[in-house]
Amino acid sequence: MATASSIKANCRKVMCIGRNYADHVKELNNQRPKQPFFFLKPPSSILLPGAGPVHRPKGVNLHFEVELAVVIGKELKDLDPNDDAAAVDAIDSYLLAIDMTGRNVQEEAKKKGLPWTIAKGFATFLPVSEHIPKEKIPDPHNVHLWLSVNGQMKQDDNTELMLFRIPRMLSDISRVMGLEKGDIVLTGTPKGVGPVVTGDRMQAGLKVDGKEIPEANIDVT
Amino acid sequence: MATASSIKANCRKVMCIGRNYADHVKELNNQRPKQPFFFLKPPSSILLPGAGPVHRPKGVNLHFEVELAVVIGKELKDLDPNDDAAAVDAIDSYLLAIDMTGRNVQEEAKKKGLPWTIAKGFATFLPVSEHIPKEKIPDPHNVHLWLSVNGQMKQDDNTELMLFRIPRMLSDISRVMGLEKGDIVLTGTPKGVGPVVTGDRMQAGLKVDGKEIPEANIDVT
Ligand SMILES: [Mg+2]
Ligand SMILES: [Mg+2]
Ligand SMILES: [Mg+2]
Repeated sequence: MATASSIKANCRKVMCIGRNYADHVKELNNQRPKQPFFFLKPPSSILLPGAGPVHRPKGVNLHFEVELAVVIGKELKDLDPNDDAAAVDAIDSYLLAIDMTGRNVQEEAKKKGLPWTIAKGFATFLPVSEHIPKEKIPDPHNVHLWLSVNGQMKQDDNTELMLFRIPRMLSDISRVMGLEKGDIVLTGTPKGVGPVVTGDRMQAGLKVDGKEIPEANIDVT
Repeated sequence: MATASSIKANCRKVMCIGRNYADHVKELNNQRPKQPFFFLKPPSSILLPGAGPVHRPKGVNLHFEVELAVVIGKELKDLDPNDDAAAVDAIDSYLLAIDMTGRNVQEEAKKKGLPWTIAKGFATFLPVSEHIPKEKIPDPHNVHLWLSVNGQMKQDDNTELMLFRIPRMLSDISRVMGLEKGDIVLTGTPKGVGPVVTGDRMQAGLKVDGKEIPEANIDVT
């Protein structure tokens, strides 16, 4: 059976969608995208459960972004965006993930037209939960995500608010670069992102039908 | 012994430096960087010798960029930028590579402050040569790179022109995200980049002390 650790060991690509929740687009004063756009985090950024803390690089305004992550179970090329069944079939399992972001580094990159790679790619910038078996999430577009900092709720929204849904994301990625078994796709963050400083405790989780899925818990400083 | 195919199979990260040759910075009307910046290509973009052609996505102005690539032989974290010996020791071997780039896609991303991932990451956008054993390149900062299109020489420069040298690049990457055995680092392209259309034949190679290194040959349409 897969574990977070075997998922990290087998992962060759972490693809993340940007601006996939309308209220999060607004809170960062960004444009709502007409089509999905993506960026890569290196597999080396994955932080396994219990392996914290998240590194706070000097001079970096570090933001959390809680996201539902999909682990890919089979190769995908040129997937039809309307083929929901094939998209669902390609999902092996899930993780909860925090897309840690150097917000000031990202803002500077955006201003200068430079890549987002450094802002998103520091070691430890992707804390993940344990492996969530596929059957625990009957509908990935109806999952409640939450994240708190030092016990204060910061993000608390349902994945039904995604602007682009998972079949469209997988289709777009599959048409550009393809997806391989073991790849991880982050599906975007809802509103409420914000900064953490050294010592702040992040907890995050996921509810299905009002019930917490224990495998999805993240607890990291 | 390593082959291009085993290198692709073991690669988890392809890190590329941007704007590392002054005359190439000028030809694209870019700013000369005060410090190196990086972006990722997915390992799935690697195109093995003989596995062409390079895909020409519709509506994409496809550019070639010939580059010397370093294959990493051991884990690197927080490398001292002045520790040339440790940097050299971490190099397993080399490849010649063409960093294929959707130039119009990249220009639009730059204008909008969006990631470069799609512009750089299409499947087949990283043709590589065969594995070049380390001893064939006694000094990676004194290698002649060339690339021709349909027999016409387009790029033809020495790696001594790099703005940031390999120890500095490896140090910077090692301090942000670390380097793992099997990672590939592209060291930037000299001047002369330009477009190719369907059917154009790209040939590229590498000379040490005026002599072609046969393992470095690339021949792809
Ligand atoms: Mg995110
Ligand atoms: Mg990028
Ligand atoms: Mg390049």
